Amino acid sequence: MGAVQSFREMCDRPKNTNVRLSLPAVCIVWQTAMIILFGVFIRYNEESDTHWVEYKKENNIPSDIENDFYFRYPSFQDVHVMIFVGFGFLMTFLKRYSFGAVGFNFLIAAFGLQWALLMQGWFHSLDYTDGKIKIGVENLINADFCVAGCLIAYGAVLGKVSPVQLMVLTLFGITLFAVEEYIILDLIHARDAGGSMVIHTFGGYYGLSISWMLYRPNLDQSSRLQGSVYHSDLFAMIGTLFLWMFWPSFNSAITDHGDGQHRAAINTYLALASTVLTTVAVSSLFQKHGKLDMVHIQNSTLAGGVAVGTAAEFMLMPYGSLIVGFCCGILSTLGYIYLTPFMEKYMKIQDTCGIHNLHAMPGVIGGIVGAITAAAASESVYGAEGLINTFDFEGEFKNMVPTKQGGHQAAGLCVAICFGIGGGILVGFILRLPIWGDPADDNCFDDEPYWELPEDEESIPPVLQYNNHAINKDVAESNFTMEQN
Amino acid sequence: MGAVQSFREMCDRPKNTNVRLSLPAVCIVWQTAMIILFGVFIRYNEESDTHWVEYKKENNIPSDIENDFYFRYPSFQDVHVMIFVGFGFLMTFLKRYSFGAVGFNFLIAAFGLQWALLMQGWFHSLDYTDGKIKIGVENLINADFCVAGCLIAYGAVLGKVSPVQLMVLTLFGITLFAVEEYIILDLIHARDAGGSMVIHTFGGYYGLSISWMLYRPNLDQSSRLQGSVYHSDLFAMIGTLFLWMFWPSFNSAITDHGDGQHRAAINTYLALASTVLTTVAVSSLFQKHGKLDMVHIQNSTLAGGVAVGTAAEFMLMPYGSLIVGFCCGILSTLGYIYLTPFMEKYMKIQDTCGIHNLHAMPGVIGGIVGAITAAAASESVYGAEGLINTFDFEGEFKNMVPTKQGGHQAAGLCVAICFGIGGGILVGFILRLPIWGDPADDNCFDDEPYWELPEDEESIPPVLQYNNHAINKDVAESNFTMEQN
Amino acid sequence: MGAVQSFREMCDRPKNTNVRLSLPAVCIVWQTAMIILFGVFIRYNEESDTHWVEYKKENNIPSDIENDFYFRYPSFQDVHVMIFVGFGFLMTFLKRYSFGAVGFNFLIAAFGLQWALLMQGWFHSLDYTDGKIKIGVENLINADFCVAGCLIAYGAVLGKVSPVQLMVLTLFGITLFAVEEYIILDLIHARDAGGSMVIHTFGGYYGLSISWMLYRPNLDQSSRLQGSVYHSDLFAMIGTLFLWMFWPSFNSAITDHGDGQHRAAINTYLALASTVLTTVAVSSLFQKHGKLDMVHIQNSTLAGGVAVGTAAEFMLMPYGSLIVGFCCGILSTLGYIYLTPFMEKYMKIQDTCGIHNLHAMPGVIGGIVGAITAAAASESVYGAEGLINTFDFEGEFKNMVPTKQGGHQAAGLCVAICFGIGGGILVGFILRLPIWGDPADDNCFDDEPYWELPEDEESIPPVLQYNNHAINKDVAESNFTMEQN
Repeated sequence: MGAVQSFREMCDRPKNTNVRLSLPAVCIVWQTAMIILFGVFIRYNEESDTHWVEYKKENNIPSDIENDFYFRYPSFQDVHVMIFVGFGFLMTFLKRYSFGAVGFNFLIAAFGLQWALLMQGWFHSLDYTDGKIKIGVENLINADFCVAGCLIAYGAVLGKVSPVQLMVLTLFGITLFAVEEYIILDLIHARDAGGSMVIHTFGGYYGLSISWMLYRPNLDQSSRLQGSVYHSDLFAMIGTLFLWMFWPSFNSAITDHGDGQHRAAINTYLALASTVLTTVAVSSLFQKHGKLDMVHIQNSTLAGGVAVGTAAEFMLMPYGSLIVGFCCGILSTLGYIYLTPFMEKYMKIQDTCGIHNLHAMPGVIGGIVGAITAAAASESVYGAEGLINTFDFEGEFKNMVPTKQGGHQAAGLCVAICFGIGGGILVGFILRLPIWGDPADDNCFDDEPYWELPEDEESIPPVLQYNNHAINKDVAESNFTMEQN
Repeated sequence: MGAVQSFREMCDRPKNTNVRLSLPAVCIVWQTAMIILFGVFIRYNEESDTHWVEYKKENNIPSDIENDFYFRYPSFQDVHVMIFVGFGFLMTFLKRYSFGAVGFNFLIAAFGLQWALLMQGWFHSLDYTDGKIKIGVENLINADFCVAGCLIAYGAVLGKVSPVQLMVLTLFGITLFAVEEYIILDLIHARDAGGSMVIHTFGGYYGLSISWMLYRPNLDQSSRLQGSVYHSDLFAMIGTLFLWMFWPSFNSAITDHGDGQHRAAINTYLALASTVLTTVAVSSLFQKHGKLDMVHIQNSTLAGGVAVGTAAEFMLMPYGSLIVGFCCGILSTLGYIYLTPFMEKYMKIQDTCGIHNLHAMPGVIGGIVGAITAAAASESVYGAEGLINTFDFEGEFKNMVPTKQGGHQAAGLCVAICFGIGGGILVGFILRLPIWGDPADDNCFDDEPYWELPEDEESIPPVLQYNNHAINKDVAESNFTMEQN
Repeated sequence: MGAVQSFREMCDRPKNTNVRLSLPAVCIVWQTAMIILFGVFIRYNEESDTHWVEYKKENNIPSDIENDFYFRYPSFQDVHVMIFVGFGFLMTFLKRYSFGAVGFNFLIAAFGLQWALLMQGWFHSLDYTDGKIKIGVENLINADFCVAGCLIAYGAVLGKVSPVQLMVLTLFGITLFAVEEYIILDLIHARDAGGSMVIHTFGGYYGLSISWMLYRPNLDQSSRLQGSVYHSDLFAMIGTLFLWMFWPSFNSAITDHGDGQHRAAINTYLALASTVLTTVAVSSLFQKHGKLDMVHIQNSTLAGGVAVGTAAEFMLMPYGSLIVGFCCGILSTLGYIYLTPFMEKYMKIQDTCGIHNLHAMPGVIGGIVGAITAAAASESVYGAEGLINTFDFEGEFKNMVPTKQGGHQAAGLCVAICFGIGGGILVGFILRLPIWGDPADDNCFDDEPYWELPEDEESIPPVLQYNNHAINKDVAESNFTMEQN
């Protein structure tokens, strides 16, 4: 830590947020690299290639409707909406950082999904006959999943980094993701359809570690901008609701055809419903006069979806899903009330969106729930074939048993945490280099450094404006009357 | 009525909007009850259970694509969006009640769908071999439908009730819904795929009756907050458009596989299109200078979807759908212009969102259209098998004939109206008890009592703000200049 | 041109924006005409008719899942969202024209899709046995596509025309579209699944020509309203993202079942991703201090989807899609920076939304890419059957070869351009008649003439008005000029 400390001082320097050269350079060069790598490696798979006609005949596939496209495309589009509108608008709650929230989310997701197709492709979709990666709709879904991990991390550093830093965060994040995913799913043979471990636990701790490395002792200089305004909270609700509504598609998008997708959707639907009630309960119980806090409604209501990610495809049972959602709503909301301030004050982790409460912690819970559910699986409940299909006890794992699978699930969870923390510290170290154009402590949570803003000051209404500048007697009065409402 | 009157006086008392104990208590206790009841009663059905593998073989189902999930999941997700984003944002039009609109809509929908799965399950999906309710994607859709009835009712009392009252409204609303639905669909054997009767007529009159029971003579004390602001009207358009776009999925979600879903989607698509034109026509014709009123565009454009709900799966014919939409656009808009003020002034029904014009009246029209279309059905048009499939003339109803079916449809409509009015009066009676934390007459349409609001007053720009409180010289001047605009 | 000039002078006259008679008249009369024409011509096709049961048996269709509804409905709903939320909200960026953007978009789309079902039906879906147009889900998609062409044109004249003019623009636009589509797809036998030529090139030049005909030399009198405000830019991002996310569905909606839809979705997904990076690069590179411009992020990020429209269903290869997106992001953004101002200054084309950069130019690129890709097609890449299926080398075109097809594609592009420019000039001529209630030059980009606006001045907060103008005297003046509108 001493080393980190000294390094930290070394990096204190006057800030220059001009990214006019670095941002275009990164975008053009990396996109060019993508084109070259795609040219060398990526082709259509047998279901998206014109040879599908022959393929159908050879494999006696009776109809085009059997093309995986029709099993997964609707779920893919829902996931796609979650990535771009869900994550993007969820982060627009800050009064003056909405452009950065939705705009940079858009940028890094668009880059990340290309890099993810390559990284995940090398690990999972490489055709050894010709050394090409063969892609179809399932690869697109997995690429979006992979991107989600980095968008979660973005939530922790929202408003405190430059777009160039975010591109770097994404480049490394996707790379680390693909490796840990390969270790967890293929080597360890853990199941994680909804990515509680692979996506949320990893992404959460990855972002938190980066935020810890980028700790800003004087961030309170930007505190005037760290709140929301009425309409920015409403924009954030658009993100919340699209995440909440489509989460069943997220958790069921890559599960087994038939009962797998069906069950995963039902479990997620139920877990999310019960989370909403406990979130409201805790939010009201811990606020003065029982008033609800939009931060909790925007975020904690989603924790249940995270926490059933792993077990959604198992026979968790409808009441099991409700229980998971019940607990996560409570824990996540309490996290916002107690843990986030504690982490900022004592652990030097400044978590802008509270991703620890929405992703990291529920992700860990999801991993544990998955391990327990897997360990408790039995032929009597799953049926002989059902058990094999659900846990994929085939090939080299055909001698696997549920109890053992439970252990593997737990092992997978540990790997996700280690990759998140380790990777985050490494990348945070890189992001501290004084070359990335990040904003000064008194210039955070502000679109001004990176966006041409319209003339209006709508996001800071006049009254507050006065507060920020010279106080004026009339307005002080009007504030007083307002407080009375 | 005399009794109601005296009861009404009895309930006049100083208001306390603190729900810090009641709201958490209701949420935690009811959610716990859900978990217990789900544990006792709810299981996966054969299509979402791991035994699907065996089930497929036993029933010679050739492929996973035959799983009902792939027939209905896309429609389900569209309906889900309508419930949470559609209804939620449609009600955000008030300048200071957007949090309550989208937030409480979120809360009661999340509770309602759980209770609906149980109530509807007992009536429709109970497996008598083991006394369990077996659920699949169709149950999720029906649960969302059931919730829609209560969200419609919320529209009538928007801004005038506490979240606790809304939870009670939902608990009873779902219960009544499940009973009337069972009577109308199973006992009377009426068809109502899109729920013109079961959802919209019931929900509409349920909400109007509650609003009548909760009549507030001094509501004008909150009139300053009963309007919209520019951007709140835009947020409401998000709700309008998602309802409008996905209504074809709503009306086709639970219709017969194949032509049933296909036809229902087409009819709804067409009815909605023609409603838009007549709504615009009437809105412009009845306004000074032919200016359009956002209230009409936000609401009346949807009336056509409500009114083809019952007949959408029948051979209504494309031109028939257009005619239904044509009439509903006119009637609904006229309702907003003449009926809503009339009802408030002379019938003591304060209908915040005008649900009478968007749901109740079009719902009744839809029921009548359904009855006529059913009575006019003939083998020459439907084909022998088509007639049986469409109207489900099977089992105990195999001797049913179209004309008779028309009568049954009409009977179903009456049941929906009676349940709506009767149930609404009953529940309204309960909601008048002085224990629910509802706001005072001068405190309605305001998020302040139930939400921690950001400091900004964006939703009431400063100048208007002063109007609401004491006039102040400086501002009087600025008002003067503004009035000139 | 001289004639046009003199005509132009002839049309200069005092403006009256009252559409109280014209707008309702147009809506009611045209909707009535639709009902009559639908009654005479439009029926359900065999897949949406109750006779589907018999049809299945006769054609040995094994299951309802083979109904085209299940192949295309999810894509249809995505396209539907693009038309109403995508196009509608993309145009809400102006500070005071958001109602008109989303509201008039709603109106003309709702009318256009009905007229499109008829026009396209007569050309493509006419059943000669009974002279009826038989419609199914694919017709609904094509109707939405047809409407898209007119909505693109709306982007060029946004804020400068009356709703009546928009209805006329749509009536003629749909008619011209159906004819050029028939010529390009059926007579010339060009392929254009995503409509780069048929939709975007035609729509783009149609709108630009109309805008040229309606040139307003004194438009700078409305310059105060031609900008955005912080939250109007966010609303526009809702439109951008829903267009961006669902574009893969747009380009794959009517392609061949199976690999066709699958491949088109993948290509579009990739092209759009790479467009985002180059758009950000160029936007940052050409702005002071490297700040991003929301106009570019909102529009140019979509150019890649336009440009792969034609080739998306071909074996463009993933890297090919990335290259197309790469170039379009650069060209489109440069277009906004250099071309749009140039066209306004020297070519008298006032293009409010810059549709030339988002639709016209990328559309032409798409047509060229399609021609090249088609000409380069080979059996070695496509496979014998694949080549025939993809390019539909059947019936009278069974002797067609790829090189020849490339020529046909190029011919199709020319037809689209000619129809766009020619039709636009014709319709622009009609729209100049002094009877349509369009706004005066100092009254453009303002909802006030056509909408009942809420009292608030949120889109220009009053206090800020002072800040912006600094002195009360100026404000009094500006109020005075406003008062005259």
